Amino acid sequence: MTVEQAFAATALKTWKTELEKADTFFSALTDEQLQTRVAPDKNRLVYLYGHLIAVHDRMLPLLGVGERLYPELDAPFLLEADSSTAPSPSAADLKRWWDEVHNRLNPALDGVAPTDWADRHTAVSAEDFSKNPLRNRLSVLLSRTAHVSYHVGQAVLADK
Amino acid sequence: MTVEQAFAATALKTWKTELEKADTFFSALTDEQLQTRVAPDKNRLVYLYGHLIAVHDRMLPLLGVGERLYPELDAPFLLEADSSTAPSPSAADLKRWWDEVHNRLNPALDGVAPTDWADRHTAVSAEDFSKNPLRNRLSVLLSRTAHVSYHVGQAVLADK
Repeated sequence: MTVEQAFAATALKTWKTELEKADTFFSALTDEQLQTRVAPDKNRLVYLYGHLIAVHDRMLPLLGVGERLYPELDAPFLLEADSSTAPSPSAADLKRWWDEVHNRLNPALDGVAPTDWADRHTAVSAEDFSKNPLRNRLSVLLSRTAHVSYHVGQAVLADK
Repeated sequence: MTVEQAFAATALKTWKTELEKADTFFSALTDEQLQTRVAPDKNRLVYLYGHLIAVHDRMLPLLGVGERLYPELDAPFLLEADSSTAPSPSAADLKRWWDEVHNRLNPALDGVAPTDWADRHTAVSAEDFSKNPLRNRLSVLLSRTAHVSYHVGQAVLADK
């Protein structure tokens, strides 16, 4: 195993470990539990579940590994904050969307050649990347790993 | 910049970005705010602050880059859960400990040669590492990055 291979495999393993914690938690929720808030006046679990699906779906084009599946999730779960008038998909629909996004995303991430993680992601221009080579694909994977952990930390606080 | 350098720099940048969010949040708290719970019946902010200091202090020996500074924090903030009888250091003490730990830890992390991140950490034997080369130093850095994000996600929910 080369150093580049070890680095890429380690980053992917951490991503999948944190993702698995989210999946274990959210996939076990009932429709009723999804309406629970993580703390008084804070986001409902349904919002966090949809939010993570939307953010991970966006990783497909951002990392240049595929087309996204559910752009319609951006408005309710990313661009807008949670509210009493926000949509509430069923637990079954959310679980299906989660599985479809990750069944497409994770094999695509596994297929990225180790050294290609140091290449730029699609939201940065070649010119900007030449000035800041840390705006690479790996930075997206690592920040999304931190992001899912952030919200799982919140989700487990819900008194469901 | 080599691929290994880009990988190491990207991992360190993500670590520092998430760490900075924690520092910004916790260092601004008063003694009174530190007694707030992140959610009803859940950890107090003082516990999370001390917990992160203890966990990060342990990274020094775990990554083989130094001796830890505050082993006495393990019992109240790591081995034991938060409780009404748990200690409550002052905001000033916690901030001092945080700063001292990270002023030692972060320069030490910056000093790790990029390819050395693929080496084993000190809690895994050479034999076990040969079976699983992902038990490397980078895995510690990435999991601790996810860990700090997890608890910052909780901390910001406190109604302080």
